Amino acid sequence: MTITLIGAGNVGYHLGKRLYKKGMTIHQVYSRQIGNAQLLAKKIKAKPTDDLSKIDGQADLYLIAVKDDVIALVAEELGKNSVLKNKLFAHTSGAASSQLLARHFKRYGVFYPLQSFSKTREVKFSTIPICMDARKKKDRQLLQLVGAKISKKVARISDKERAILHVAAVMVNNFSNHLFYLGQQITDAEQIDFDLLKPLMLETVLKIDQHSPYDMQTGPARRNDEKTIKKHLAYLQKFPEYVQLYTLLTKSIQHAYRR
Amino acid sequence: MTITLIGAGNVGYHLGKRLYKKGMTIHQVYSRQIGNAQLLAKKIKAKPTDDLSKIDGQADLYLIAVKDDVIALVAEELGKNSVLKNKLFAHTSGAASSQLLARHFKRYGVFYPLQSFSKTREVKFSTIPICMDARKKKDRQLLQLVGAKISKKVARISDKERAILHVAAVMVNNFSNHLFYLGQQITDAEQIDFDLLKPLMLETVLKIDQHSPYDMQTGPARRNDEKTIKKHLAYLQKFPEYVQLYTLLTKSIQHAYRR
Repeated sequence: MTITLIGAGNVGYHLGKRLYKKGMTIHQVYSRQIGNAQLLAKKIKAKPTDDLSKIDGQADLYLIAVKDDVIALVAEELGKNSVLKNKLFAHTSGAASSQLLARHFKRYGVFYPLQSFSKTREVKFSTIPICMDARKKKDRQLLQLVGAKISKKVARISDKERAILHVAAVMVNNFSNHLFYLGQQITDAEQIDFDLLKPLMLETVLKIDQHSPYDMQTGPARRNDEKTIKKHLAYLQKFPEYVQLYTLLTKSIQHAYRR
Repeated sequence: MTITLIGAGNVGYHLGKRLYKKGMTIHQVYSRQIGNAQLLAKKIKAKPTDDLSKIDGQADLYLIAVKDDVIALVAEELGKNSVLKNKLFAHTSGAASSQLLARHFKRYGVFYPLQSFSKTREVKFSTIPICMDARKKKDRQLLQLVGAKISKKVARISDKERAILHVAAVMVNNFSNHLFYLGQQITDAEQIDFDLLKPLMLETVLKIDQHSPYDMQTGPARRNDEKTIKKHLAYLQKFPEYVQLYTLLTKSIQHAYRR
């Protein structure tokens, strides 16, 4: 299996390294910044380029791991190259439609590793779900095969399902992270060590592996402890912008258990 | 060091087992429900009782691990017993004031393991911060000593600081867990496997060990991706009660990065 990687950002970087490690041949690596392409290409014995017109027809699969808002542009550029016309293209985005590729290629799909990547952190790739789909059955089989090489979990997820997963991911990842930020704002303002809260934060997530969040809910909102809620709101007058969030989240929890 | 444990709920259960494991003698275990007292007492070679008037003066430290709203009541009962008058009492609550004990004892303090416990889950106790304080210096030293036996992290935290930590804990633990619940509501409603999101949830927390939540923020709100935000809000019309939360959390993130 020979793969060409379009994009050497956070996703391209980790995906490229994992595919290479699991025995796939990475043929070319494209990045707009040649330095990024070279850096990754060296690690995975591929050829770097910063010129889309140099992407050749020697790979079986072309993974497009660029920012959502340039997928269409990149696909258009690649679509101009006649040697790529019958090749399989899949983007790695959680939010973009596969239809962005349909205009330019007959064989297209999605190969989305559902994780938040940053170059400075190694992630345990084997547990990352690969959400994949393709228009043609044999292409789905190919993506399934590649996915199973690098992860224990590969699922066929349609464009519509992926869009919904993305909303849920914003809830559980982006919004939770923001709550962590608010927690730190509070402890920092009072010169209390934020690290004191980290084991609790970790346990909150670890619990969800075996229990439902519904069953694991604790705290003043859950037990309708109005006295503590009032105390907290009084304290939060120091952070007026948090009062509304605290109130709304408290109401939302109370609502969930009133049913 | 001999300790008597008042309460055999989630906190008492885990704390008692840990203290015993680390070489302390647990003298008596009280629970309102004798079955709970017996169950724990057997594990840690202590004497069970469901009668507060039977708590004797043979321990060096009395840990009160009962629900917040009965701490005052339990302290009052124990305060009637003259053999306990000069003993050190500490409650294990994150939210209750140490002053609840001041009325009944000369030597009082707090010994609060900052973690969310449930009997069905073992936790790695060595990483749990012990937030302690006591009125008298020698009692603080004693609590410091006991804390250091069972955890790598013991910090002196005043009543005021503990109250603030509690607000922050609600943000990072209770509210995050609720967001996990909302995420699951969304995936369940669409028959999508919620487990797909779990590696992402875990990574969100693991990142915070080495990076600030501020630096780790990603998502449509962070990058002011109004197109995606609108798409998400349109989808959330199915869950009208989530629209306001999504909007407010999005605004709060945008606000944090506008400064």
